[in-house]
Amino acid sequence: MQLTGNPRPLRADAIHNREAVLETAYQSFAAEGLSVPIDEIARRAGVGAGTVYRHFPTKNALFGAVIDHRLKQIVTAGRNLLDDGDPGHALSEFIRAMALHWGARDLGLAQTIAGDGIDIYTLAPEAEARFMGLLGELLAAAKQSGTARADLTVREVKAIIVACQAAQIHTPDVADRVTTLILAGLRPSASGQNDETTATSDTPV
Amino acid sequence: MQLTGNPRPLRADAIHNREAVLETAYQSFAAEGLSVPIDEIARRAGVGAGTVYRHFPTKNALFGAVIDHRLKQIVTAGRNLLDDGDPGHALSEFIRAMALHWGARDLGLAQTIAGDGIDIYTLAPEAEARFMGLLGELLAAAKQSGTARADLTVREVKAIIVACQAAQIHTPDVADRVTTLILAGLRPSASGQNDETTATSDTPV
Repeated sequence: MQLTGNPRPLRADAIHNREAVLETAYQSFAAEGLSVPIDEIARRAGVGAGTVYRHFPTKNALFGAVIDHRLKQIVTAGRNLLDDGDPGHALSEFIRAMALHWGARDLGLAQTIAGDGIDIYTLAPEAEARFMGLLGELLAAAKQSGTARADLTVREVKAIIVACQAAQIHTPDVADRVTTLILAGLRPSASGQNDETTATSDTPV
Repeated sequence: MQLTGNPRPLRADAIHNREAVLETAYQSFAAEGLSVPIDEIARRAGVGAGTVYRHFPTKNALFGAVIDHRLKQIVTAGRNLLDDGDPGHALSEFIRAMALHWGARDLGLAQTIAGDGIDIYTLAPEAEARFMGLLGELLAAAKQSGTARADLTVREVKAIIVACQAAQIHTPDVADRVTTLILAGLRPSASGQNDETTATSDTPV
């Protein structure tokens, strides 16, 4: 994991320790979610807790660094879908990849996008802005190509990603099918954009 | 909260205590999810922890009783949608109600359906069977009326409910719209049942 923008040069062993902590935190959050304690990350990285706190004064600072790095990778991958493939299908490919590949293999990422126990706006505001900006570009390209409803919004797209990630409660084939069904609902309908309203039940139980 | 099927008659105060524990557990799980400790439920119900354990030897026994009761209410409400309304729209009304009303007001219920930290098959197998049976009836009625894709399965419907519940990360208007979009994907498409495949990105980040 490459980190840039340190306020002052670090000695080689300090750099090594910082990288080891970040890599361990990244792997731990991906496998087990964001609840892994700092002390456990220090133990797995083979450094003392004091070393972790020297580089990352709070758990939120460590969260922020990991999330910032991870979302940069995601945004780069999403932009590649736009630039190298069919822009009209980049949005649906991105949502599928978030739900079935990246998010499925990275619990911390899925929790971050869902806002589950973490406030990304506070911890990594730049990363959040880049991510939402990418969603905006993907959505614009899909609308331009006629593959997304004209009235779809960026916040709805983000909620759809969270929905697709949550749908993975069963085997991968069910998750894949459900994601496909959900994506079908984002396309313009043959009989008009706004014909999809269904009666809402207000009956409380 | 009415409970039936106790193995032997309980004295009036014992019945009162059992009801108080169940009602408190139900309210606590609904508001805060399934992680509320037993001792805290005893404190809120105004009884000793020993009283809780006398009626419910394990936390799972308490979970099971609450979930069984809650799912009975849900299944009754779902069956009313089938019997008293338009059977063709009962499935989508049920999914909307699960996502936007019952699940939104009951975190414990949402966690139960999602299998989040709880194995309903073990804790309340009869309630699970009744719930899945209801989904099967709703789905059959929707297919019969031509309002659901012919290839939709009960497990997919359950995953869709979990997806819709998870999509409520934003304001209620976004949650409502996203649920409507997701439901749109469950209907038969004008151009055929199986035209919804989209290229899958296998690019790992």
